[in-house]
Amino acid sequence: LNARSPVVVVAPNSFKGSLSALDAANAIATGLRRVWPHADVRVRPMADGGDGTLDAVLSAGGERRTARVSGAAGTAVDAAYGLIGGDTAIVESAQVVGLIDTVATARPVEERTTQGLGQLIDSLLQAGIGKFLIGLGGSSTNDGGAGLLSALGMKLLDANGKAVAPTPAGLTKLVRVDARALDRRLSGARFTILSDVDNPLCGERGATAIFGPQKGVRAESVATIDVTLARFAKLAEAAMGRGAMDRPGAGAAGGLGFALMLIGGEIRSGAEAVADLLGLDAALGGADWLITGEGRTDRQTLLGKAPLVAARRATAKGVPATLISGAIERGDLPELSRAFAGCESIVFGPMTLEDCIADTAGLMADRAEQLARLFAAARANSRP
Amino acid sequence: LNARSPVVVVAPNSFKGSLSALDAANAIATGLRRVWPHADVRVRPMADGGDGTLDAVLSAGGERRTARVSGAAGTAVDAAYGLIGGDTAIVESAQVVGLIDTVATARPVEERTTQGLGQLIDSLLQAGIGKFLIGLGGSSTNDGGAGLLSALGMKLLDANGKAVAPTPAGLTKLVRVDARALDRRLSGARFTILSDVDNPLCGERGATAIFGPQKGVRAESVATIDVTLARFAKLAEAAMGRGAMDRPGAGAAGGLGFALMLIGGEIRSGAEAVADLLGLDAALGGADWLITGEGRTDRQTLLGKAPLVAARRATAKGVPATLISGAIERGDLPELSRAFAGCESIVFGPMTLEDCIADTAGLMADRAEQLARLFAAARANSRP
Repeated sequence: LNARSPVVVVAPNSFKGSLSALDAANAIATGLRRVWPHADVRVRPMADGGDGTLDAVLSAGGERRTARVSGAAGTAVDAAYGLIGGDTAIVESAQVVGLIDTVATARPVEERTTQGLGQLIDSLLQAGIGKFLIGLGGSSTNDGGAGLLSALGMKLLDANGKAVAPTPAGLTKLVRVDARALDRRLSGARFTILSDVDNPLCGERGATAIFGPQKGVRAESVATIDVTLARFAKLAEAAMGRGAMDRPGAGAAGGLGFALMLIGGEIRSGAEAVADLLGLDAALGGADWLITGEGRTDRQTLLGKAPLVAARRATAKGVPATLISGAIERGDLPELSRAFAGCESIVFGPMTLEDCIADTAGLMADRAEQLARLFAAARANSRP
Repeated sequence: LNARSPVVVVAPNSFKGSLSALDAANAIATGLRRVWPHADVRVRPMADGGDGTLDAVLSAGGERRTARVSGAAGTAVDAAYGLIGGDTAIVESAQVVGLIDTVATARPVEERTTQGLGQLIDSLLQAGIGKFLIGLGGSSTNDGGAGLLSALGMKLLDANGKAVAPTPAGLTKLVRVDARALDRRLSGARFTILSDVDNPLCGERGATAIFGPQKGVRAESVATIDVTLARFAKLAEAAMGRGAMDRPGAGAAGGLGFALMLIGGEIRSGAEAVADLLGLDAALGGADWLITGEGRTDRQTLLGKAPLVAARRATAKGVPATLISGAIERGDLPELSRAFAGCESIVFGPMTLEDCIADTAGLMADRAEQLARLFAAARANSRP
């Protein structure tokens, strides 16, 4: 009865600070195979458009490349990106202007720019790439995407007609924007912005007010920078003949969302896009169980994060979706329980966060194994 | 498909230091009912003959009584015991001579005695009780059961024919044992000793060497007390015309095992006896799932502890048995996995032991709920 090895789709997010999504998925698969040596385990590491998106997407195929471009503070960085299906590039903003780049973050946020990301896109356009998937999240910049637009040919000029630096500091002198030299290839290209942020560019819910402080914007500078970005945005919108600054997501990644929308980009849930790129729906065909996971879980997970998207895709196909998390906010279990068939944790007893992080993969494999034993027993025992 | 509410037997041990077995079982039941409001949840709190045995047995019926007898240091204690089925008493040694009695343990172990337990048995014999279930474990005494035998009429005499104190100190002066005045009613009574200990009374695996230190026997006194108990035991065996000191379990509860065997008692696994008293096998009839639990789990659990016994009974009837523990020794999971369909923990992420103990019942209910969601999904999904 039910002795058939099950088909399990394993689609966790990364465990921030301890495990990539692929490593997490492989750990879960290891645990499952201890129970079902012949199980059909379909590994689909998830991501939400932020850190790890490139790795997750490339796990399903494609080519990993590197380009030398300017980092947020102008120093050269070797940014990884991916090529999939011949004419599509997958770009992770954080690879170019990431908060993890401590050389860049040693400089004040007022002097950081997204120019390098524009350089990368420009070189890819020149190489014939027509579709871009651009993951936002984890950026150290707050330039409204001025750097990106400038690298793609937009002229940002001061009162004397001289180019200003495409940074919050430089933009204070901005008086004119000329978009006529913008790369012509842009019009034929398609940009998909991967982000879960729905903030506008400016105002009290804008990029600077909400995300600025975690990038080093001092409280007393928020208003000044916000005004600077608003002026830049209005000039840029006028030059392009198109509005974007009030659209949801324009405030993503310090305004990169705005800049990408201004050149025609459409925003999309990172997790949904990744699920599509990985062929998650196809993987769920004939599946018995989906296991997803993440490092920390609370009700925020329900706002479209990768584990929720994976669970929704599964549930839509009648496949139960179980969450394995590093830590779960117990007070949010009633809401979480509506999305997951079991919110389980990798820990086996009281322990410190440090010990947990030191062996996340081992804990993950052991927990997956134990849950698989329960799952197998429940199936075997089933008497309709 | 499989929408029928399941039948779940809930049979945890107590969570030492935080939750009685009944409270643990009720917490699990609470979690299960959040998933299956109409589930047939059969609560069978387990015990292993130690602390909590009385409560567990009485949860299935019977009468709780109290008797005033001497504690281990002679001070009066009100000891709880149970009456079941008219002629059977369930007695927990720790209620009379427990390590938890800090008045008694303020006195040196050399001066503590099991006399009070003999008084309790004596008064129950007088009241017509014919069957005794005596849970050992958690005792503070190391008198070889001399106190118990003395309270039941055995004479322990010094060189001058004067009675010696039935304590390790008193027994150093023992030269003669007279069993002729032993309560006649003993011969018609049946004693079942509930214990998982298989140590003999004396020697390097004996009561004093193995369990003495945790009761306060100093390292330098182990040999002296061991010799004293051996001499007492040989005299007592001769007086009774029966051997017991080398039998497995004679060393339980500081030698109470020996004394009870000497008056005809038979040793039995506490958990097995409790399972029978609770009607665990009957409860498993038609059940879909058994959940057991305990505060801390490692390979010792496999040596006949209550969760193992519950799981074995379930497995014998084709019912999967899942363990929910406060903390699981991960290195022992391979062995534990052979006994349980899933070794799960009550914790939801890194946390301190103190926080865990402060809300064991809440954690337990939440974990049971989450596992039930997984169980339900696995059953519903089952496609043979």
